[in-house]
Amino acid sequence: MTLILSNDDVGRLLTVEDCMAAMEPAYRELAQGRGVSRTRSDSIVAHRTMKDAVYGLKSMDGIVPSLGVGAVRINSDVISWPKVGNTQRRKKIPAADGRWVGLVLLFSTDTGEPLAIMPDGVMQRIRVASANGIGIKQMARADASDLAIIGTGWQAGTQLIAACAARPIERIRCWSPSTERRTKFAAEMSEQLGRAVEPMPDAESCVKGAHIVLCATSSIDPVYASHWIEPGVHLSSIKPAELDNATLKRCDRVAVHVHEGQPLSFVEKGVDAAETELKKTWAEQEGIDFAKLPDITDLVSGKQKGRDKPEDVTAFVNNIGLGYQFAVAGAVVHKKAVEQGLGHNLPTDWFTEDVHP
Amino acid sequence: MTLILSNDDVGRLLTVEDCMAAMEPAYRELAQGRGVSRTRSDSIVAHRTMKDAVYGLKSMDGIVPSLGVGAVRINSDVISWPKVGNTQRRKKIPAADGRWVGLVLLFSTDTGEPLAIMPDGVMQRIRVASANGIGIKQMARADASDLAIIGTGWQAGTQLIAACAARPIERIRCWSPSTERRTKFAAEMSEQLGRAVEPMPDAESCVKGAHIVLCATSSIDPVYASHWIEPGVHLSSIKPAELDNATLKRCDRVAVHVHEGQPLSFVEKGVDAAETELKKTWAEQEGIDFAKLPDITDLVSGKQKGRDKPEDVTAFVNNIGLGYQFAVAGAVVHKKAVEQGLGHNLPTDWFTEDVHP
Repeated sequence: MTLILSNDDVGRLLTVEDCMAAMEPAYRELAQGRGVSRTRSDSIVAHRTMKDAVYGLKSMDGIVPSLGVGAVRINSDVISWPKVGNTQRRKKIPAADGRWVGLVLLFSTDTGEPLAIMPDGVMQRIRVASANGIGIKQMARADASDLAIIGTGWQAGTQLIAACAARPIERIRCWSPSTERRTKFAAEMSEQLGRAVEPMPDAESCVKGAHIVLCATSSIDPVYASHWIEPGVHLSSIKPAELDNATLKRCDRVAVHVHEGQPLSFVEKGVDAAETELKKTWAEQEGIDFAKLPDITDLVSGKQKGRDKPEDVTAFVNNIGLGYQFAVAGAVVHKKAVEQGLGHNLPTDWFTEDVHP
Repeated sequence: MTLILSNDDVGRLLTVEDCMAAMEPAYRELAQGRGVSRTRSDSIVAHRTMKDAVYGLKSMDGIVPSLGVGAVRINSDVISWPKVGNTQRRKKIPAADGRWVGLVLLFSTDTGEPLAIMPDGVMQRIRVASANGIGIKQMARADASDLAIIGTGWQAGTQLIAACAARPIERIRCWSPSTERRTKFAAEMSEQLGRAVEPMPDAESCVKGAHIVLCATSSIDPVYASHWIEPGVHLSSIKPAELDNATLKRCDRVAVHVHEGQPLSFVEKGVDAAETELKKTWAEQEGIDFAKLPDITDLVSGKQKGRDKPEDVTAFVNNIGLGYQFAVAGAVVHKKAVEQGLGHNLPTDWFTEDVHP
């Protein structure tokens, strides 16, 4: 049977803690050259009817031999870049009847057959959080107990959970531009984590005194100022743009998620400025040579140390996702879904064939 | 609704002629830099249990703006390389309960939503034939009427149909190593084409006097000898290995399907010789600099001429497939499937989501 799973199923089956536990050995497998990861590619064309919007078809693949799975993650997005306040944001338009389109297809490496098809949304925020959580395990001070988070949106909640799984966190503060949103987020996360999350009136008071600062925004402009840096802090970002070069240059150690910092780009000739602008932001980051920085596989395999001394300033930049992560998370979800009988069962022969190219 | 279609559906809905007709303007769109094609990538690991086999997860993407579709084509294969007679062949093992796994996912560029999921097998042989057929239209002598085909397997039938659609073919001969298979193929194709297809006892007598020679084999060794070349012949191959360098060097004009002659390769460190061997065969072809040859988009857009004089020797090498072709063919299939009410209708919200990464 091939399972069609929903985000609800994924949310029920995949915890940040389980995902982190599965990811660590998988990253080591990648470091050993056993796992295989195919860099994301972005195919972009101008939207046929919406002005200043593009259609993007993005894919990434990965194989985790020890788990016996391969995965393809696909995003089929209508995207625009409106300004929100002072920052330019990337907006995915829910053009599919009010919904978005992101899929993970999971295959067996033993038989080739499709094991499951599931949406990527809930898994995405768990896999992002898992990578940053592993970054914290490898790089933050062992006794880090004071946590600040900039951003209170979709990614922020799992980022807090991952940080709490990685370090003995006692105090948590949050900030985002909207008073209403940060208050709501603080209340929800206080309840979920069983410890107080305090909404702060501005970013600077939020990050002051924190041992770990999480940036978890959709901003494509920096959200953290380099003069806020205090000795011993670990900075964790989910997008390269959140931390500017000045900040990265003041760090004693910076690691990236992976070395392929830019997706392979396949773009229609006539596509307008928005995506190009975004690429420029990424390109600007290259003042820091990401290729020479350790990546997460260097950290978990022990090839590189995350931190020398408690007073070191460290940063982990989650620069781009891997299909490989979706293969790991997909394997965890699929195993549990089969055990618990969740999802729509479709005949596998709907997705296989009796001829071959 | 998202349609799940079968190979039977695709076979019923997609003719070689319709596919060729849709492909020609789409290739021009690609030449204009409007269409977008993401080169195939191959992720390869050793198979966990089968000796001398690998697991390959291959993907390619494409967007055809004028048709409003994007496609991802995925192959999830267990592969070995046995020797058959004197030639080494690539064998896809039907490990998925006796079946193979190749899928095309079709998306709307207007809404992002998944329009259809279908197997790639029948579409694959039609899209390969369409490319070679367009190659014939662009390169073969206008009065070519004598046709020979080497290979009588899965790809051969549609190759004949495409050649007959491109030129006023009167005489057809076929050859493959097995007397039984070539006799059966000749009988079947004679009936299907409504004109005699004659099985020949050897390759040389098969190609002698032909204006067009189609190579349509799964061989990874050459199947055509350069001393068989006669003035005015057009050689058409579905894999680079079928025509050796000596043959290509004797041609007045050679065109390739696309310039990305090699897939992007993502291979496990420990993977054994088979795939490497195959890559070597491709690499050897680089004695001819494929990057400098015209491709099919140069031909259909008129940037390059396919042939100068009737006595020129020409060759078209179908070196690698494009996700773009599956987007074109998928659009044709999807439109007709909706009109005719074919396929399993699944709720689109099984494949969309109300959150987004």
